[in-house]
Amino acid sequence: MTLLVPSFVKDAWWSPSDDEQAVGVFDASTGDPVARVSAHGIDLGAMVEYARTVGQRELGRFTFHQRALMLKRLAQYLSGVTEELYELSTRTGATRNDSMIDIDGGIGVLFTFSSKGRREMPNSQVYVDGPAELLSRDGSFLGQHIYTRIPGVACEINAFNFPVWGMLEKFAPAFIAGVPSIVKPATPTGYLAEAVVRHMLESGILPDGCVQLVSGGARELLDHLDARDLVAFTGSATTAHALKAHPNVVSGGVRFTSETDSLNAAILGPDARPDTPEFEAFVRSAVTEMTAKAGQKCTSIRRLIVPRESVADVAAAVAERVGTRVTIGDPRDEGVTMGPLASVAQRVEVLAAVRRLVEAGGELVFGDAEASDDAFFRPVLLRFDDPDTPEVHDVECFGPVSSIIGYESVEQAIALAAKGGGSLVATVCTHDPEVARTIVLGIAAHHGRVLVLDRDDARSSTGHGSPVPHLVHGGPGRAGGGEELGGIRSVLHHMQRTAVQGSPEMLTSITGQWHAGAHTDATVHPFRKSLAELRIGDTVASGLREVTLADITAFAESTGDTFYAHTDAAVAAANPFFPGIVAHGYLLVSWAAGLFVDPAPGPVLANSGLEGLRFVTPVSPGDSIRVTLTAKQITPRETEDYGEVRWDAVLHNQHDELVASYDVLTLVAERR
Amino acid sequence: MTLLVPSFVKDAWWSPSDDEQAVGVFDASTGDPVARVSAHGIDLGAMVEYARTVGQRELGRFTFHQRALMLKRLAQYLSGVTEELYELSTRTGATRNDSMIDIDGGIGVLFTFSSKGRREMPNSQVYVDGPAELLSRDGSFLGQHIYTRIPGVACEINAFNFPVWGMLEKFAPAFIAGVPSIVKPATPTGYLAEAVVRHMLESGILPDGCVQLVSGGARELLDHLDARDLVAFTGSATTAHALKAHPNVVSGGVRFTSETDSLNAAILGPDARPDTPEFEAFVRSAVTEMTAKAGQKCTSIRRLIVPRESVADVAAAVAERVGTRVTIGDPRDEGVTMGPLASVAQRVEVLAAVRRLVEAGGELVFGDAEASDDAFFRPVLLRFDDPDTPEVHDVECFGPVSSIIGYESVEQAIALAAKGGGSLVATVCTHDPEVARTIVLGIAAHHGRVLVLDRDDARSSTGHGSPVPHLVHGGPGRAGGGEELGGIRSVLHHMQRTAVQGSPEMLTSITGQWHAGAHTDATVHPFRKSLAELRIGDTVASGLREVTLADITAFAESTGDTFYAHTDAAVAAANPFFPGIVAHGYLLVSWAAGLFVDPAPGPVLANSGLEGLRFVTPVSPGDSIRVTLTAKQITPRETEDYGEVRWDAVLHNQHDELVASYDVLTLVAERR
Repeated sequence: MTLLVPSFVKDAWWSPSDDEQAVGVFDASTGDPVARVSAHGIDLGAMVEYARTVGQRELGRFTFHQRALMLKRLAQYLSGVTEELYELSTRTGATRNDSMIDIDGGIGVLFTFSSKGRREMPNSQVYVDGPAELLSRDGSFLGQHIYTRIPGVACEINAFNFPVWGMLEKFAPAFIAGVPSIVKPATPTGYLAEAVVRHMLESGILPDGCVQLVSGGARELLDHLDARDLVAFTGSATTAHALKAHPNVVSGGVRFTSETDSLNAAILGPDARPDTPEFEAFVRSAVTEMTAKAGQKCTSIRRLIVPRESVADVAAAVAERVGTRVTIGDPRDEGVTMGPLASVAQRVEVLAAVRRLVEAGGELVFGDAEASDDAFFRPVLLRFDDPDTPEVHDVECFGPVSSIIGYESVEQAIALAAKGGGSLVATVCTHDPEVARTIVLGIAAHHGRVLVLDRDDARSSTGHGSPVPHLVHGGPGRAGGGEELGGIRSVLHHMQRTAVQGSPEMLTSITGQWHAGAHTDATVHPFRKSLAELRIGDTVASGLREVTLADITAFAESTGDTFYAHTDAAVAAANPFFPGIVAHGYLLVSWAAGLFVDPAPGPVLANSGLEGLRFVTPVSPGDSIRVTLTAKQITPRETEDYGEVRWDAVLHNQHDELVASYDVLTLVAERR
Repeated sequence: MTLLVPSFVKDAWWSPSDDEQAVGVFDASTGDPVARVSAHGIDLGAMVEYARTVGQRELGRFTFHQRALMLKRLAQYLSGVTEELYELSTRTGATRNDSMIDIDGGIGVLFTFSSKGRREMPNSQVYVDGPAELLSRDGSFLGQHIYTRIPGVACEINAFNFPVWGMLEKFAPAFIAGVPSIVKPATPTGYLAEAVVRHMLESGILPDGCVQLVSGGARELLDHLDARDLVAFTGSATTAHALKAHPNVVSGGVRFTSETDSLNAAILGPDARPDTPEFEAFVRSAVTEMTAKAGQKCTSIRRLIVPRESVADVAAAVAERVGTRVTIGDPRDEGVTMGPLASVAQRVEVLAAVRRLVEAGGELVFGDAEASDDAFFRPVLLRFDDPDTPEVHDVECFGPVSSIIGYESVEQAIALAAKGGGSLVATVCTHDPEVARTIVLGIAAHHGRVLVLDRDDARSSTGHGSPVPHLVHGGPGRAGGGEELGGIRSVLHHMQRTAVQGSPEMLTSITGQWHAGAHTDATVHPFRKSLAELRIGDTVASGLREVTLADITAFAESTGDTFYAHTDAAVAAANPFFPGIVAHGYLLVSWAAGLFVDPAPGPVLANSGLEGLRFVTPVSPGDSIRVTLTAKQITPRETEDYGEVRWDAVLHNQHDELVASYDVLTLVAERR
């Protein structure tokens, strides 16, 4: 008997007491049994409730940075067990290269999210979105958008093709947001996802309740969800639509996002003639995307849209490259570059789709698409004389199959790409920046991602088919209408944006960021306080210092900034913004530092930067300036003995007019 | 015969040839006929196609700023015709104050969006989202997120209660995005929306095809939409769910967003005892929200959640205020502060809902809720002894009706608010910042907006019931799960976010923003070029300038910035980041200006600011620095003869190590 893949429920491993309903899963290449899968009798309602209570509570003990740091440690731990995962992955039909995309790619997502979570989010539990909005003239009433985590569970339903990457790219952002996950892998490759979950738990890094696993069917999962929860689905459009029509989505307020297969296009620019580096890059990419993962990628190129006069050349070049570079077989065998489809059932499905395309007018450029009784399927390239044939834009073959169509004009190429009805990704292959601009802006609204391929990035490009964690993955329409990855954008998809209105004092308390008008404390110069002692609102206000013409002249001479507004009274007065000679903006901020700094050694280590500087009122000779510096945001670093302090700096003149405002960034030692 | 309210179809007024199916609309106070409404026989498919072709094409001729400026002119035009609109509005049952919220509030949205569109978006057609992401070590492959408008139509389906504001708050962001609108007002008050559309068209400001109007039923509208289009719905949850279940939404990829009525709560903090200013503010807000628009607002307070010991006091104070301040009647009559419900049908519905609440255990504090044959309905306050009574959190009375429940602890208050299943807005009334923080963060994920009310903002607050254009409006779950307003956030909801990958050269061409690595032009110093002549990529690179200890000392003395890292070699060397004495960051940026500036009078008018400054490598005495300044983004202003130029500034040392990077903002004259 092969292993019955267990589920992980309420922080304990679980298997059905009765495994008669278990489904067998087989090695894609050999057909040997690998595992059996059943979630018969699993208590999905209890899992959801456990996530909402224990999972939310335990994740709620940590800040964004703390959770992000756990992801890094998790990634390091998983990096130590990849050989076991590779071995399992081979059984799914994956070549070494396919496995790398899935396993190392998945671990890479954890590293990137860990880094971005700590660099781009505050070390707290509230993410502030955008600047405060002044809603009353007297400054007593403001608005500020915040994000807080959704109060439920993220149900992550994955496809069979990337059991590791697909799970981790959904888990990571939920985890940083502080939302517990219920992971539901696809049955055919769920044994690999289960192995990853087992290692994740064995690492001892994860808090209780933050991850649960359903190995097997979970049709009733949505019955248990409500407006607190989220479903992130990857898979077929048919299943996505069935889930999206569930009453709890339609009227129950469950957040639903999906990423479904689409008929991604690659457009060869009119400049990319057969002798150009772009032509070669296009052909190489076309073949890679046909054959990687045996074409079982939602991002594979299905439509090659090329200048009509180049159709024959592209077809020949693709055929030549497939013929010489692609070796099909058991991925365990030496020299094999393309494995089988995931199962015999997949082969049957792909074959049927190819036949539909042939019936619709597709001519076979290469490939035979014959029936056989194993899961191996040789690449197929079809060619359509009529580029508007509906089927070429609609029938997806989820295997190593592409179609080639010709266009007459760039406008037609754009219109043809749009006929996909919304895609995950398109490649635009051109070395002409104007062509790139026209095509990309023409097709962008139909795509979640567009890759511009040319001689300059052909070597460094991460490729058409590979979503990167920094950029969004997902697309409109047929591609599911969802959005994943994209750095912290996907963390925010697990949070609710709320506009908070109130006084500066209240917004300061709620956001953890000081708002002008909230109380301040000037009893001790804040440069004398360590990060642990400093509080937002700690402030120092200087006296006035007069700016003389001699000061301005000396500053111009020493810095070399002899711009006429600082040196020539007559011409300066003709400037629409200045009454005559004015002080340099750089003089003002330099002097401001002189006015607010407490020079003796102390916890403040360095000025690391400055943001949002705006000059408002010019300063003329004889004017005086003063500065107020107030601690605005304090960000301890989990892995250092110092952190970042953001200070609100405001300059006024002797008439209390606003001269300039900005944020000063400093590094401050945790302890004195 | 009363007026048959026309539709506006394909840039022409349209009425049905056969008006037998027209529905009568009546004055809410008098019952007199006001208008008849029918869209029988209207060609919705042709309207959708017209928007996608003519509307998209005509709006596509303009930039974000140009469209935003049209909105300002439109707002100015509408401000001149408000008296006619007020008169029509009175027929809907609106008091002068109700009309002001609807009409002036709607015009105010146009002004705010116009201003935000020009301040917060580029003067182009591509909105860049976030910083570029470096995807290869050699800098030849980058990613950048852009937003481009959706390629279809925005169908805006509005509720009866705010025919002007509801239409304009949906139209404005679509217009700035460049997306044409089909406006579908609610039949009972659509004659007022029609009047506004008529004036909008008569202004002559709007491009062809950007707005169409359906006066009457449009049940089949969604049948004509696909993944290019968007539906923004405001109204009942029942209708929202029916639309959301439409096949074109479930599987056709139509973007759907809804804003539905919710059981909004107001929580009185435990500190807000009967003698506090917060108690008074709470009672005043409760009565305002019960009676404004006769309680027919999706944002009205339906649940008063107060400390158990204050239930009786709050009930008495609300009763007293309603008794002395609220006069019900025809809004045309002197002294009337609350008008009728929109129709007799609405009265019947509200009465039925009140009866359900009474049956569930609600005690009538005041109000009689008796049947009558007109649309007038006196305010009703109910009190529930059991705060967990399901009906009080679920049954909405869309009229001047609220319920009061008591809580024992702040945690219980949070749990009770959450029982609404997702609301548009909540008020938290407290003067204790810790209480505010606990409650707001506890309920935020269930709300689109939270107002913290206390003595400091009671006078300046825009109020619980009033969405402001700067902040998002909408909420999770029962509130519809949508998001409107929120400044340019709502413009972006009409656009598709796309990740674009490519070389710096290609990203520069596509985004209109210069990316490091793209080609530059150093033939003429860019300060000699007017805004019209300047191109992104125009650059100046300086030679090296050595920084001596004497320079640092002199800078410290002249600015007063004698921070130890610039003055005390021994202590500076003990700093974890510095090898010894280092130059001030402010010295570096001041010198950089001296190195890049071309001082003679010319088109560059002023340094208006600086952004994103980061200091990377410290500069020691004996080091030299050089600067490269490159035009990164050019933003002409539609209403001025100058515009903003954002420059990429990079400092290197003599070893070509990165010293600092930032953006310099300048104002540059349009012409020399």
